[in-house]
Amino acid sequence: MFRIAIDAMGADSGIFPIVQGIKQAFDKEDFFAYIIGNSVQIEKFLGDFSREHIEVIHCDDYIRMDEQASSAARRKDSSIFIAMEMLRNKQVDALVSAGHSGATMSLATLRLGRISGVNRPAICTIMPTIADTPSVVLDAGANTDCKPIYLHDFALMGYEYAKNVLGYAEPRVGLLANGEEDTKGNELTKETFNILKKYPFFNGNVEGNDIFNGSVEVIVCDGYTGNIVLKTSEGVADSVVSLLKNQIKKSFIGMLGAILLRNVFKSLKKKMDYAEYGGAPLLGVNGNVIISHGKSNARAIENAIYQAINTIKADMPNKLTQVFASNKNN
Amino acid sequence: MFRIAIDAMGADSGIFPIVQGIKQAFDKEDFFAYIIGNSVQIEKFLGDFSREHIEVIHCDDYIRMDEQASSAARRKDSSIFIAMEMLRNKQVDALVSAGHSGATMSLATLRLGRISGVNRPAICTIMPTIADTPSVVLDAGANTDCKPIYLHDFALMGYEYAKNVLGYAEPRVGLLANGEEDTKGNELTKETFNILKKYPFFNGNVEGNDIFNGSVEVIVCDGYTGNIVLKTSEGVADSVVSLLKNQIKKSFIGMLGAILLRNVFKSLKKKMDYAEYGGAPLLGVNGNVIISHGKSNARAIENAIYQAINTIKADMPNKLTQVFASNKNN
Repeated sequence: MFRIAIDAMGADSGIFPIVQGIKQAFDKEDFFAYIIGNSVQIEKFLGDFSREHIEVIHCDDYIRMDEQASSAARRKDSSIFIAMEMLRNKQVDALVSAGHSGATMSLATLRLGRISGVNRPAICTIMPTIADTPSVVLDAGANTDCKPIYLHDFALMGYEYAKNVLGYAEPRVGLLANGEEDTKGNELTKETFNILKKYPFFNGNVEGNDIFNGSVEVIVCDGYTGNIVLKTSEGVADSVVSLLKNQIKKSFIGMLGAILLRNVFKSLKKKMDYAEYGGAPLLGVNGNVIISHGKSNARAIENAIYQAINTIKADMPNKLTQVFASNKNN
Repeated sequence: MFRIAIDAMGADSGIFPIVQGIKQAFDKEDFFAYIIGNSVQIEKFLGDFSREHIEVIHCDDYIRMDEQASSAARRKDSSIFIAMEMLRNKQVDALVSAGHSGATMSLATLRLGRISGVNRPAICTIMPTIADTPSVVLDAGANTDCKPIYLHDFALMGYEYAKNVLGYAEPRVGLLANGEEDTKGNELTKETFNILKKYPFFNGNVEGNDIFNGSVEVIVCDGYTGNIVLKTSEGVADSVVSLLKNQIKKSFIGMLGAILLRNVFKSLKKKMDYAEYGGAPLLGVNGNVIISHGKSNARAIENAIYQAINTIKADMPNKLTQVFASNKNN
């Protein structure tokens, strides 16, 4: 049975959605949950839920969202430190946290270590597309300043994740640029293009809209750009919904139309909802780490647990270790 | 009467939407249009429209979308070269082109010259927001690799454009970064932050979603990031529309609901339609240059002409010359 450490602390809406998400995940999957954090609150939210596959591990400290990520290394009694040590000591097979993502990243790199050959770990975010299959964007924010070789590593890791965890037969990898032509891009992506062109999976430059139209499965960029792409997408989606709502409220006919379109809007919302895609795996470290959005609701935590299980099943760290070892020899 | 040179060549849908857009603009504004391109086709599309305020200038050559921008400087009989010379010689007060944007930019820089003190001209794109007022993003693609001082110039130019052309009393300028905190950003934006913090209009770092929520009026970034933000926004908006359409078609109730929401969708489409925002001014050169989308329809050209007129009225190049001269002395 897979064992998952779940950091219950530091998320925007507190402990409740974390515990609720864990409970929901037990409906579909069989696993053992170590829930780390304030045990009084965790126990309260667990209520009379079966403890057969749950162990609550109490701690007093956690990294607040406004604290420096670097302080995490010294906070040995914090929830994320305890969870990371369990992963490091192989007491668990994966870790899920919706707390301070910078702290999770820096502890993962420091305590688990990078996979040999990987220059920088990357956050791999799953994005909805108009095709039936999501795409992945990496790096989504771990490394604001990148060298071409980092982006090369992201391409390899994204390809393996799309293939082994998402199950795509032949994922295509695109390099995010300001135009599709080979000559487009900034200095960073132009150099990266030259490194990546030897790989059969490399589909050349792609543009911002290609993230959503299913033309490639993996989109590679630096973490500054990746974060901005994510926030921009959320912003546009939120704006469209908010404009729709405002317009609909203006007339009776509008409200009637909206009632008839209730199911359409529901399915659209589900498609665009980050919560349906769980969290973002941190690829390139020696362990399965899933970073969830700070504002995660129960559904997002539930999906992050499924994602953790899929990542364990795919044996991602070992697979990446092999890929980077054989790549080095080529 | 303001005189505008309009490059009729090189747009994705040919000459028709350009001529149609000019005709439409005469309904609202009084100006003189020099239309440059294939005179046989232009005359055909003008039909029996009054020539009182129109002169057609024939040329045989134009820069195709797949040609190198750098070739424009040698193509003295091309439509954009002729139009740019008219602007340079003050035969016209502004120029509008929906042709090869790289050619327009390079010719503008080469033939009109940069405003003294401006390191690099920038494309300033107007974006819809959920507030009633649009925001501007610059640079939207002219400079893929930037130095902090370029972004400083973009901030000043964007501020002046928002104030003098869009008419905002006190525009706020934000620096696009991967987080709102002062410490966020990549090396480029962190250095830029330190340069910009002395300006009262500087609102600090903003995130991707701030482009659409009206929290600032001017968003500054490098041209690589700006282009990706634009294409990502278009991609999300298109995806939402396409998902909605597909879902609606699936049921009779859905189609009925969509009929009732027809006006709502129409007003949403208008809000999100690039054509409603005209073109993007190229700021920092000695002349009023409006770069329109290659896929511009007649409505987009019509609005680009209004935008050209507003830019002439605001006397942007002179205003920027003064601002950069006084900035130098501080």
